[in-house]
Amino acid sequence: MLPFRFEQVTSKNPEDVALAIETMQIRGAPSIGAAAALGLALAWSVDRRRFSDFWLPRFRSTRPTAVNLFHACDEMEVCSKTEPDAATMIECAVNYADAEVDANRRMGGHMAELLAVGERRILTHCNAGWLAAVDWGTATSGIYQLAQAGESPFVWVDETRPRLQGSRLTAWELYQAGIDCRIQADSAAAWMMAKGEVDAIVVGADRIASNGDVANKVGTYALSLAAKEHGVPMYVVAPSSTFDIACDSGLDIPIETRCDEELLSMSGVGSDGQLCQLSIATSGVRCNNPAFDVTPYANLTAIVSEQGIWNRGEPEK
Amino acid sequence: MLPFRFEQVTSKNPEDVALAIETMQIRGAPSIGAAAALGLALAWSVDRRRFSDFWLPRFRSTRPTAVNLFHACDEMEVCSKTEPDAATMIECAVNYADAEVDANRRMGGHMAELLAVGERRILTHCNAGWLAAVDWGTATSGIYQLAQAGESPFVWVDETRPRLQGSRLTAWELYQAGIDCRIQADSAAAWMMAKGEVDAIVVGADRIASNGDVANKVGTYALSLAAKEHGVPMYVVAPSSTFDIACDSGLDIPIETRCDEELLSMSGVGSDGQLCQLSIATSGVRCNNPAFDVTPYANLTAIVSEQGIWNRGEPEK
Repeated sequence: MLPFRFEQVTSKNPEDVALAIETMQIRGAPSIGAAAALGLALAWSVDRRRFSDFWLPRFRSTRPTAVNLFHACDEMEVCSKTEPDAATMIECAVNYADAEVDANRRMGGHMAELLAVGERRILTHCNAGWLAAVDWGTATSGIYQLAQAGESPFVWVDETRPRLQGSRLTAWELYQAGIDCRIQADSAAAWMMAKGEVDAIVVGADRIASNGDVANKVGTYALSLAAKEHGVPMYVVAPSSTFDIACDSGLDIPIETRCDEELLSMSGVGSDGQLCQLSIATSGVRCNNPAFDVTPYANLTAIVSEQGIWNRGEPEK
Repeated sequence: MLPFRFEQVTSKNPEDVALAIETMQIRGAPSIGAAAALGLALAWSVDRRRFSDFWLPRFRSTRPTAVNLFHACDEMEVCSKTEPDAATMIECAVNYADAEVDANRRMGGHMAELLAVGERRILTHCNAGWLAAVDWGTATSGIYQLAQAGESPFVWVDETRPRLQGSRLTAWELYQAGIDCRIQADSAAAWMMAKGEVDAIVVGADRIASNGDVANKVGTYALSLAAKEHGVPMYVVAPSSTFDIACDSGLDIPIETRCDEELLSMSGVGSDGQLCQLSIATSGVRCNNPAFDVTPYANLTAIVSEQGIWNRGEPEK
């Protein structure tokens, strides 16, 4: 319901947690993993007899693709083998979540280091924040850490058509955190770079090929061309689990095409406060809706993960 | 009301025509000029006594900036000095409108010539079509002429945030004309060029500086960077009245900043068929909403007007 309503949901039984994942009340691979670990700890407390036969498969089946979900379930399964008491299982789940938090904190620290030369007007695209990745986010982690250090970062938030993750989620996050930002049309980004108003671009990644090519939300590639033209450094921040060594280059990354409706209709809140959906474009016309694009490693300044910084053309740190 | 409803309005008295211009039922500088000429011919027929003292100033005050409006009023004023009969005044107005049609036809002809080497997958941004410029449009004129010649052009239509002139007007126009097209997010354009799916870019212009720099809808500059990267020819098609010799370069063109609402809310048609407005983004967050940007002449392949083709680096034809 963001950014129109923010609700915190307390789940008192494991099925509620599983449903929260299944129905995308929780989204983003790291957040899903943490929620699954905690949900399984709850299952261990209240329904230990069915833990292996029912609850493990139940949680594993909530979402099909997020690899973190399976990591979390595996870790909780291993922990359960020692027949621990409820408190130990909860500790195991909390440790799993804390490890995610720590990874995001570390990648943000590396990012903030790279920005330390006075790059404070940061442009971001889509949402790679704590709504998707526990506590810090990935691309936003360095921004939050700069803010906590009293460094006053400023963020240009690309609205990110068609799903508006920028103006709906990233802007909401930053606004809650009191970080100064402006929402802009995606196509204004290059112009702001031409005007010298952007010090750095920081984005997340959906998948990184072994040659460093990055698949991310459509529009990232266009940003990289403007960054190159205007000498604006461009950083990708993503957990090491995003690297896919089975992909030699960006050419091997399949790009999802999504439905026309994302461009032809729009949800929002009317004057009566109710969520609703409108047709916004010419009906009957077909669309071209690639969800992602591929940015060549050559267009990036560095890739940052919890393990460190890969500067282009320099040896791995 | 486009693209949701198409209505033709018949104005039986000059005040209705003036109101149609004032309330933007008619938009686009060439269309406004033609409508004003016809409205003044109507005023001459039905209320000749007040033509000079009332109707000329009435029409001149309908819109503040479109230079074509003043050209049309001037021409009708000159015609009226000879005290012609009603039919002659109507002929004068029709000649004015026909001259606009002819100019658009000619610039489209030049454009189609440039595309004659087999560039049939054309990308356009915003609306520079017949809804704004009588019968042919400017950027679209060449596309319509190719279609009439049986050449089957295909158009990638950038939706053109924030006001969606692409998905609402250009797509509607092309769909009515039976021309195959796809609506896409503005930020998908660079990716389609990277994939080799775009043969040429054709856009209009809001103002052209004397060095050839072009101010046009925000996003045009980003397109020019991707075009340069991928060797896609980029053409600007605009009437010679768009050239502003008082501007030495793009740096001298003032860029309008528009209201935050364009990014924070969205109009459309609900399931009940009624037009309404929704909040679509995080409320309370400010926006950055430049309406236009400037594309350097160096990034363009050619500028086309009714007078001919200016190829970059080549002598004027």
